[in-house]
Amino acid sequence: MSYSAKVDVMLKDGIADPQGQTIEKALPALGLTGVSEVRVGKSIVLEIDAPDRDEAYSRVMEMCDRLLANPVIEKFEVTIA
Amino acid sequence: MSYSAKVDVMLKDGIADPQGQTIEKALPALGLTGVSEVRVGKSIVLEIDAPDRDEAYSRVMEMCDRLLANPVIEKFEVTIA
Repeated sequence: MSYSAKVDVMLKDGIADPQGQTIEKALPALGLTGVSEVRVGKSIVLEIDAPDRDEAYSRVMEMCDRLLANPVIEKFEVTIA
Repeated sequence: MSYSAKVDVMLKDGIADPQGQTIEKALPALGLTGVSEVRVGKSIVLEIDAPDRDEAYSRVMEMCDRLLANPVIEKFEVTIA
C-alpha cells in the first residue's frame, strides 16, 4: 500500500538559526512588527510503499536518520497520512 | 496576545524540484526503496503578537506573500496554534 508521509526537520533548540534571524530582522522594514522566535526548517513530503502504516513510519524515520536530517544538530518529526 | 504560527512553503505542482529528485535518487543506494513523489519545501515557525487569531493569521499570510514565499512558483499554508 502507498502512504503519504510528511517530514519536518528543524534545527534543535539552542542551535543558532541565521536564516531565521535574517527573516526576523527583515520584517520590520516591511512594516510587519511583533514577530519573534523565527526558526526555519525543511519540510519533505513523499509517497512510500509499505505493507502497513507502522512499517511506513519506521522506514521514513530511518530515512531521516540516514539522509534527510543531521541528527547532531537537527530534530525531525514524521507524520504518516 | 502571542500566537505560535507555522508556515509550510512548497513548490507548486508542476514546478521541477531538483532537491526532491536528488533525494529520490539517493535512497535506493541506502537500501530504502519504494519511495516516490519526493518534494522538498521550507517550514517556518514563529511567534507573533496580535490582538486575535484572525489578525495573526492575516499578518502571517502577508508575510508569506511579501517575504517568505515566492508566489509565482511556491504555494504556502499557514497554521496558527
